[in-house]
Amino acid sequence: MTPNASTFVANARTYSPSARPVVVVCLDGSADEYLDAAMARGKMPNLQKMAVRGYRGFARGALPSFTNVNNASIITGVPPSIHGISGNFFLDPQTGEEVMMNSAKYLRAETITAAAARAGRKVGIVTAKEKLRDILGHGLFDSLNTLGAQDSTRGIAFSSEKAPEAREKTHGISDVERVVGRRTPEIYSGDASLFVFYAGVALIESQRADFLYLSTTDYIQHKHKPEDPAALEFYAEIDTQLGRMLELGAILGITADHGMNAKCKPDGSPNVIYLETLLRETFQLEFKVILPITDPYVLHHGALGSFAVVHGPSTAPFEKIAKWLLDLPGITEVHDRATAAAKLELPADRIGDLIVLSGRDTVIGRTPAHHDLKAVASGLRSHGGRYEEMVPFIISEPLNDAYAVRAASDPRNFDIFDFACNGTVR
Amino acid sequence: MTPNASTFVANARTYSPSARPVVVVCLDGSADEYLDAAMARGKMPNLQKMAVRGYRGFARGALPSFTNVNNASIITGVPPSIHGISGNFFLDPQTGEEVMMNSAKYLRAETITAAAARAGRKVGIVTAKEKLRDILGHGLFDSLNTLGAQDSTRGIAFSSEKAPEAREKTHGISDVERVVGRRTPEIYSGDASLFVFYAGVALIESQRADFLYLSTTDYIQHKHKPEDPAALEFYAEIDTQLGRMLELGAILGITADHGMNAKCKPDGSPNVIYLETLLRETFQLEFKVILPITDPYVLHHGALGSFAVVHGPSTAPFEKIAKWLLDLPGITEVHDRATAAAKLELPADRIGDLIVLSGRDTVIGRTPAHHDLKAVASGLRSHGGRYEEMVPFIISEPLNDAYAVRAASDPRNFDIFDFACNGTVR
Repeated sequence: MTPNASTFVANARTYSPSARPVVVVCLDGSADEYLDAAMARGKMPNLQKMAVRGYRGFARGALPSFTNVNNASIITGVPPSIHGISGNFFLDPQTGEEVMMNSAKYLRAETITAAAARAGRKVGIVTAKEKLRDILGHGLFDSLNTLGAQDSTRGIAFSSEKAPEAREKTHGISDVERVVGRRTPEIYSGDASLFVFYAGVALIESQRADFLYLSTTDYIQHKHKPEDPAALEFYAEIDTQLGRMLELGAILGITADHGMNAKCKPDGSPNVIYLETLLRETFQLEFKVILPITDPYVLHHGALGSFAVVHGPSTAPFEKIAKWLLDLPGITEVHDRATAAAKLELPADRIGDLIVLSGRDTVIGRTPAHHDLKAVASGLRSHGGRYEEMVPFIISEPLNDAYAVRAASDPRNFDIFDFACNGTVR
Repeated sequence: MTPNASTFVANARTYSPSARPVVVVCLDGSADEYLDAAMARGKMPNLQKMAVRGYRGFARGALPSFTNVNNASIITGVPPSIHGISGNFFLDPQTGEEVMMNSAKYLRAETITAAAARAGRKVGIVTAKEKLRDILGHGLFDSLNTLGAQDSTRGIAFSSEKAPEAREKTHGISDVERVVGRRTPEIYSGDASLFVFYAGVALIESQRADFLYLSTTDYIQHKHKPEDPAALEFYAEIDTQLGRMLELGAILGITADHGMNAKCKPDGSPNVIYLETLLRETFQLEFKVILPITDPYVLHHGALGSFAVVHGPSTAPFEKIAKWLLDLPGITEVHDRATAAAKLELPADRIGDLIVLSGRDTVIGRTPAHHDLKAVASGLRSHGGRYEEMVPFIISEPLNDAYAVRAASDPRNFDIFDFACNGTVR
């Protein structure tokens, strides 16, 4: 094995990465159609080369098909039932409060990146959204380290959104704008994601990192269809940066946290089921509907997604309610807590009494007053359910025989580090 | 409007096709990955042009994701709940017998093609599998015509499989091999599907048809992964024929009946749940499990798919059984008859007491004795469930504004005639 290769274990899975830079990319909200539209127009020549030389297919993501859930899955290599992140937002049963689930204190598994750092890899994590940094950077820094580490930092982790706030002690890097050679972008932009790639390239080039996780944001995908010029330009620039990483010798693994669909009626207007309103009116009980898509970035989706959690009084006739819910047009699945935990691989203590999923063109809201539809007036595109579960899965190198078989079976997006570390022909 | 343009109604939907040849293609078992793999290698330049000039996206097929169900949906423009075809195979409640559902006598809706023929279009239907001819040709010929038509034939309908048997009176054409200029192919081959395209081109070129439905067979997809040379070659030749139709001025609408996934364990061996065996052993009752994928073409799939119908004695505790079934690893959905009819759009009188779906990598069998795994020894690839529900949806011309919005929402594969006839910029 070459000098800085390394083998390590994270959450009972073994990773043996090449000594070359290993880069895993999570393209937030990147339904396969975005790649198709850009590739058909010749705008992703590097991705095209990867697909031919390496592997391109689909993988099944974790449910709900939301950002925090899937980023946590990808960086730990395990489903939400194990890592504990069940949404962007949840009703904390310990406090009874509705809170963001963006703190590493909610994470119940170690990260692959922290294990890699302990094994001597130079870890670099760049996320567009600050909300993800705490979870993704878990275990790399003293402040977060629960594993008894000695050294003060063992990796780099920062966001595009708060790039200027990065400090050696807390982020493993400072002066990010100078290192990257770019200004901090606006979070509601494609540039917030492109900055992630510029930073990734800079970290590899300057030999600051050789084991990277790059996670973008889905502003473009929420706002643009795959064939829109803004989306095509965005993917073309991503491709250019992927090309630079390939030139630097990187092994690339690319996937997405979730897909993206227009959640509209045939006339283009938002297709919303206000679930809390409906439940309270119909059953005259104090239901609370939690929408785990909720996050600080409301312009993206207006907190409307295809997955909802219902909490009700313990006396509520949940079985009857579940049947009633499933009869609603646009609702596709309703599960009680135990079934949701088993079939959707969710942590039973961090969901509600019922889990409700909606169809390809339908989102679930809480009450009309909870949502500002003006934020999504240009057309509602969102995610959260089964129809955003399948995501692209791309490896830049040819797969070895065992992983070629696995790739054709039922790979998960959170197997991407495994494939990038163990799955390629050496 | 140009001379041989026409407007007609079928099943309460209105179609106003262009006077140019209109060709709808159903690429059997063509998961999107097949197009991706071929396009990335530059083997589908015509499809690539269509995707850029026209539209390429995904559409949701009908469930179960089987051939007869979806071909019937595409040619009628309505879901199985209306057209009545619930599988390739079913337990006829009228006779108590298990029978193929490949006769037009089971069809409860008129075909778009018969309506087009009545409106003066020259209809041409070519299917690879003979089993589909009776359903697809419904209403075109005296022997099948229940609509009081006068003339003896009003269109052409034949299969690659039985091309030499075509006669004017029953198929609207004779001497097919001479017309097409090719020999009848072996049904277990890619050629069985390519012959469909050769025939389509010949029918347009000879002005025998200007309103066509071409339906292939999925032998290649059952036997080959998207990146296999045999699959790439197959799609390259399809592309060449699509190009010829474009040159002949055709408007093309291309979709699939279902996708295709490897139904294998991580080691590549078939991943089968023998449902009838399990149910009988566990509940000690006389269950009958019907596998609606069953058809005469066993080499394709060994009658193993991801959708099963359970019939049991009326005293069986179905609610309890449903819960038990859903707990089985690999089982993803279990519905009672009423829910299946409502949520999966199935004809309630042609399904069973329970409907069971399995996951991306899992198929459902009846008993070990019912299936010859040797037939799928080269690797089991199959379909039938949700993970084969999303299919490609391609229109060769730019969409008009209203249909562009619909395309981004939740189009169905059985909207393809609607899009090809009504959805393009004129």
